[in-house]
Amino acid sequence: MSKPLNVTIWNEYWNERNNPAVSEVYPDGIHAILADALRKRGFDSIHTATLDEPEHGLTQAVLDRTDVLLWWGHRRHEDVSDEVVARVQGRVYQGMGLIVLHSGHFSKIFRCLMGTACTLDWRVKGEKERLWIVMPGHPIAEGLDRYFELEKEEMYGEPFEIPAPDELVFVSWFKGGEVFRSGCCYIRGRGRVFYFRPGHETFPTYHDETVQQVIANAVRWAAPSAVAEEPPANVRREPIEPIEEA
Amino acid sequence: MSKPLNVTIWNEYWNERNNPAVSEVYPDGIHAILADALRKRGFDSIHTATLDEPEHGLTQAVLDRTDVLLWWGHRRHEDVSDEVVARVQGRVYQGMGLIVLHSGHFSKIFRCLMGTACTLDWRVKGEKERLWIVMPGHPIAEGLDRYFELEKEEMYGEPFEIPAPDELVFVSWFKGGEVFRSGCCYIRGRGRVFYFRPGHETFPTYHDETVQQVIANAVRWAAPSAVAEEPPANVRREPIEPIEEA
Amino acid sequence: MSKPLNVTIWNEYWNERNNPAVSEVYPDGIHAILADALRKRGFDSIHTATLDEPEHGLTQAVLDRTDVLLWWGHRRHEDVSDEVVARVQGRVYQGMGLIVLHSGHFSKIFRCLMGTACTLDWRVKGEKERLWIVMPGHPIAEGLDRYFELEKEEMYGEPFEIPAPDELVFVSWFKGGEVFRSGCCYIRGRGRVFYFRPGHETFPTYHDETVQQVIANAVRWAAPSAVAEEPPANVRREPIEPIEEA
Amino acid sequence: MSKPLNVTIWNEYWNERNNPAVSEVYPDGIHAILADALRKRGFDSIHTATLDEPEHGLTQAVLDRTDVLLWWGHRRHEDVSDEVVARVQGRVYQGMGLIVLHSGHFSKIFRCLMGTACTLDWRVKGEKERLWIVMPGHPIAEGLDRYFELEKEEMYGEPFEIPAPDELVFVSWFKGGEVFRSGCCYIRGRGRVFYFRPGHETFPTYHDETVQQVIANAVRWAAPSAVAEEPPANVRREPIEPIEEA
Repeated sequence: MSKPLNVTIWNEYWNERNNPAVSEVYPDGIHAILADALRKRGFDSIHTATLDEPEHGLTQAVLDRTDVLLWWGHRRHEDVSDEVVARVQGRVYQGMGLIVLHSGHFSKIFRCLMGTACTLDWRVKGEKERLWIVMPGHPIAEGLDRYFELEKEEMYGEPFEIPAPDELVFVSWFKGGEVFRSGCCYIRGRGRVFYFRPGHETFPTYHDETVQQVIANAVRWAAPSAVAEEPPANVRREPIEPIEEA
Repeated sequence: MSKPLNVTIWNEYWNERNNPAVSEVYPDGIHAILADALRKRGFDSIHTATLDEPEHGLTQAVLDRTDVLLWWGHRRHEDVSDEVVARVQGRVYQGMGLIVLHSGHFSKIFRCLMGTACTLDWRVKGEKERLWIVMPGHPIAEGLDRYFELEKEEMYGEPFEIPAPDELVFVSWFKGGEVFRSGCCYIRGRGRVFYFRPGHETFPTYHDETVQQVIANAVRWAAPSAVAEEPPANVRREPIEPIEEA
Repeated sequence: MSKPLNVTIWNEYWNERNNPAVSEVYPDGIHAILADALRKRGFDSIHTATLDEPEHGLTQAVLDRTDVLLWWGHRRHEDVSDEVVARVQGRVYQGMGLIVLHSGHFSKIFRCLMGTACTLDWRVKGEKERLWIVMPGHPIAEGLDRYFELEKEEMYGEPFEIPAPDELVFVSWFKGGEVFRSGCCYIRGRGRVFYFRPGHETFPTYHDETVQQVIANAVRWAAPSAVAEEPPANVRREPIEPIEEA
Repeated sequence: MSKPLNVTIWNEYWNERNNPAVSEVYPDGIHAILADALRKRGFDSIHTATLDEPEHGLTQAVLDRTDVLLWWGHRRHEDVSDEVVARVQGRVYQGMGLIVLHSGHFSKIFRCLMGTACTLDWRVKGEKERLWIVMPGHPIAEGLDRYFELEKEEMYGEPFEIPAPDELVFVSWFKGGEVFRSGCCYIRGRGRVFYFRPGHETFPTYHDETVQQVIANAVRWAAPSAVAEEPPANVRREPIEPIEEA
């Protein structure tokens, strides 16, 4: 617990460079504001990586020193190489935490870890979202009130095609009439996975103090107590107790 | 509930044709004895399919009329085409039940649906396995006593690298000293998935009356109440309630 | 499965006799309309019981022949005797299904089975409730569309102080800004328990066809495959395998 | 996280004073050895309480300053007053962690929090128990190998009549042929509850270094991030969004 957490923030980083409506809100990229938010909250070892870097910036060396990985992607999910996805997945099995943000619901890595379609209903009208805390004592909800609001957000609606979360922390209310399971915890191998809904690229969601607090809480929650040295494997074992062989 | 269930039994069907120790126990293949077992228990609409058939016998047409699919594979998991795996997975999302048997734990389809490594410890010494019912009221345990035994089986031991089951029905005790979560229920999309541990190919496990009863129970449990006409998709929706657009 | 299900509908039956605003909506009591709704949907063996009957109408004989019990109570939870609560609880452990409706969230029997405070936020203003199906393939949601609406209902809001449901079927959206986990499945012993939120006594909720359909679905879901003859007990056992005694 | 954890160890403390076979193993009581084990592992603020003290040593003041409570009881469960049980339960709802040991499975407080019968099969023959870790990355399993053994223990066998655990950490293998879910995590209100099986009073289980390590890990796991100031209550709320009242 006392050694510093190594956090890697992965961002597709396409919208910010190709859509003025996005670059206005996130001029240095979504990864930059997330890095700032975590630094302000006491995380000192922050690394960023983006899609267009070699190996998307996620070499084995980078992953091996990452305790918690954040993932934001939207338009170019299919451009993420299967090899890198498998590498991230293997590292989650060993214990690396993974926080999947917003449109990352449809990333290869999230779909591979969930084993479901991960589809949902959606609408971009900039309507009000209110996130209710349904597990008030959960570490990811630490310091929050009964709910928090985002004035303008994309709507995501049920059915969200996910396995039943191991822990459901937030449920969203949308002005337009929908609800959504907005904060979902999973264990996959030794790794902890958290899906957090808000964060459409044209709205200033990641500038919001409460959203930043949730993400910082989630990083702490997702940090492994100990990472396995090897990925899991099928292992032949001798009997511990005496048996009569067939 | 009153229309007949359509069951498809998929078998790799390699060991039975290449290993005399297996063909002695299952001369017509594991799929044949499973089909007999289900017919004897009142299932009339049984279909079988094997790896070496075109499209492994799992065309879209076959899957579209299948309510519950059984899966046995071991040595040739990697020879199952990714396209067929995706087709089966999509059909599970729509509601088809899937029962994965024994070494099927490491099949592509099971790993894709679980999102984990699905590895385990193992040993083939023909030792005693005792399966304990830990959810006595569960439909898959209907008609069973507190436990049942298999005199000679392969050992599978923990850690079994799966997501925590939605329902855990059986836990195995092995003579050699291990335990294993042997009967695991999952929901994936609208489909119900059951993993059932026993069934090493050199032992007469599928001749066992209780094992046959469990599989028949599992088929009934996994049958969908209604199958979705389309696979799940991301859908854009208009607001139900009035909103002020951004 | 083919023998008829015996359903007992328990109602506090106080509001209907003491509050004209309620008797106008439910002149014969909430139990009467629920009985009608189930009869119309093919359940032939319906029994009703109310608080003021001897033993609240829930003698051991009545419970012993009940497969599924429905429970509606509100103002007089504390007048239900502990002995009857223990009797119902024991019968649930043996396998009887239990469907707890609306303000039954704060009944003794529900709180005893949950082990939590079962409190919530509330408001009676007759606002719109929209119930979203978050497990579309679940038997309790059979025949439903993506959501259904009630024009005027009491609001129940999170945090709902329950254990995480074994299965979460519905989540409600309220006009006034809240969300609520409205359809929650639990296994307790061999018994299946379903909590279903709607049903404030001054609104015509139980006249609603969809609400009636959900309750009928829930009765089928909660029906036991087999009821245990005895309640569970601590049992001393001899070893199955040889041990060297200490 | 940096303030010291306040741990209270509650022990029935009857066997140790009335049965020489027990006092020989635990001359100062089970609470004393547990306190030593925690002190050695860095917990400085340890308090003990026993059945025969006024209010069983669990006054409101004691509970109000307790972060995690350990509970060992066996022969005198029924002598624990309902008032104290309700007080402990309320404090768990507010966030206090609770670790229930061995025969505490049948204590009033555990049965109240579980909502089930909490019965099991048992046998005191001093046989070997081997506890397998089925969630290798779980904080309660930190520092453990694949399994650990106790040479002589009481057997507890399935069915263990509990709700499905929120997290299942250990499964036991017994020489005599049984299995048991030995390490079970639950959330109740804001409180974390851990049931840990080993610890029959005539065997030196709590002298075992690994058992002590598990209990220390469990104390850290069960510690609340923040305790609620008030117990949960039903609260009337005004609408957040405008509604047309009925």
